[in-house]
Amino acid sequence: MLAERVLDGDVRAAARLMRDIDDRMKSAVDELKVLYPHTGNAFIIGLTGPPGAGKSTLVDQIVAGFRKKDLLVGVVAIDPTSPFSGGAILGDRIRMNRHADDAGVFIRSLGTRGALGGLSRSTTDVVNVMDAMGMDVVIIETVGVGQDEVDIVSAAHTTAVVMVPGLGDDIQAIKAGILEIGDIFVVNKADRDGADRTARELSAMLEMRHPEEGEWFPQVLKTEGSRGVGIDELIAEFDRHHDFLKTSGHLQRLTEERNAKLFTDTLRDQLFEAVFGAIKEDGTYRQILDGLRERTTDPYTAVERVLAQSSFS
Amino acid sequence: MLAERVLDGDVRAAARLMRDIDDRMKSAVDELKVLYPHTGNAFIIGLTGPPGAGKSTLVDQIVAGFRKKDLLVGVVAIDPTSPFSGGAILGDRIRMNRHADDAGVFIRSLGTRGALGGLSRSTTDVVNVMDAMGMDVVIIETVGVGQDEVDIVSAAHTTAVVMVPGLGDDIQAIKAGILEIGDIFVVNKADRDGADRTARELSAMLEMRHPEEGEWFPQVLKTEGSRGVGIDELIAEFDRHHDFLKTSGHLQRLTEERNAKLFTDTLRDQLFEAVFGAIKEDGTYRQILDGLRERTTDPYTAVERVLAQSSFS
Repeated sequence: MLAERVLDGDVRAAARLMRDIDDRMKSAVDELKVLYPHTGNAFIIGLTGPPGAGKSTLVDQIVAGFRKKDLLVGVVAIDPTSPFSGGAILGDRIRMNRHADDAGVFIRSLGTRGALGGLSRSTTDVVNVMDAMGMDVVIIETVGVGQDEVDIVSAAHTTAVVMVPGLGDDIQAIKAGILEIGDIFVVNKADRDGADRTARELSAMLEMRHPEEGEWFPQVLKTEGSRGVGIDELIAEFDRHHDFLKTSGHLQRLTEERNAKLFTDTLRDQLFEAVFGAIKEDGTYRQILDGLRERTTDPYTAVERVLAQSSFS
Repeated sequence: MLAERVLDGDVRAAARLMRDIDDRMKSAVDELKVLYPHTGNAFIIGLTGPPGAGKSTLVDQIVAGFRKKDLLVGVVAIDPTSPFSGGAILGDRIRMNRHADDAGVFIRSLGTRGALGGLSRSTTDVVNVMDAMGMDVVIIETVGVGQDEVDIVSAAHTTAVVMVPGLGDDIQAIKAGILEIGDIFVVNKADRDGADRTARELSAMLEMRHPEEGEWFPQVLKTEGSRGVGIDELIAEFDRHHDFLKTSGHLQRLTEERNAKLFTDTLRDQLFEAVFGAIKEDGTYRQILDGLRERTTDPYTAVERVLAQSSFS
């Protein structure tokens, strides 16, 4: 069984299991069942931001920072190019180089090619594998624009939002939304013109939210990923937030929410697969498609009929 | 019934129905059933691209271009900020100004706050309302990064991918993926440095795909949305692709795929809602959460038990 080897920290077994998860193999579920009781120890960091914010380089530096403290680090890079090309253009090639020979770092790129709900579910599965194999820190990196990707990082213990100076109007609008999910804000490429202004604007927007006593108040940090500037401070802020989560009881709550979401995502997928498989096999789906084409039925009525023929609990 | 007024082209009734769709009111489904046989006439254009590509301004110009030809135009703007803030920061405010007094233009912003699959479904629903109310052209505009958003524009008849010169490496990677979904490529902000190079690079990448005889070969057009440069040519290219779809039979196939997807999305949501509602009500969900917390069960086993208690068809 792969799971036993994963629990022993076997990197090859973990990589193999993650491929099986990607391929949605039935056996992967059995392995994940065995691993589940051994999860819940890793500190999960989500890192998001617009394209061009330098997230990959920053993650590379954060990994190095945690490694200096002798922590084992896993990275899950969500790669938005993959739905089309199937390849991991960003992830592996750039970052693997530096940490390739380091047994304390495990990097995995995930495509977004899965079915609806699939990305969120397989990300959680992969994070759980890294958690069970003994990674102390797991970093989920993704482009923060789509709802799916944002959901994924929001499911982390600590979410860092990475911005850069001098992006356009759309970005500003996204920023207004992204304020609500960040525990830490990073202005990367801080050597660029306008970095101080971006940081000040972010701080001002955060201050308008009037945090209550005992609530976490997000800081804005400046970094230069390419030169490693500000990384120690960022690592210290991750630690500070982790401590806050532990002492406030939020860590427990976040872990429970992640598990509940994994359950509902899995339920959603498997219910659909079961029913859709059945109506494809017995010819109902073919009839529905004909009816939709001839407009003798409509999608809503067709769903009602399928539901009426299924019975629950 | 709202549907009857929508079929008469009543803008207020349409706006009201779209709010009901957003709010997932049961009555909205009954209205959509009535409208369904009257859909299938609108030409649906998807427009996507990275943040900062100037998509909103470009859509504004495209709307004006179609209006010059006396066509009725609907716009569905997918607004990635909304999951958080609930507001439509980009859409309405910027564009409504110019077309606010024009009864031939109907603009609707959609948030991405819905459940998984929700955005895709409500976009299709809203497009169908615009189609049934007699819009000749419906433009779906979205940021092209998340899987959800890309799925949505891919469901259009014609997909235009908007790029700009001088964006970073992440963008280039996304571009490699997005090549496969574009029917038309637009290099916007063409007065900027590097516009010609970006257009040449795109053309070169497209040529590497070696289209077969009778296949559509995407062109790369240059525009300046802010000054209206290149818009007539873009409108002509939309028309050319529309003609290609009609004569090749692809239009019929795309319409059928859209309807099939609306059916499966609806089925997925409603199955989940029915079963999740049932296990919440009978206490099973509470027990599962307790088991997950105490790690006496795992999410996969819990799903299997719920499925075993449901029976299908």
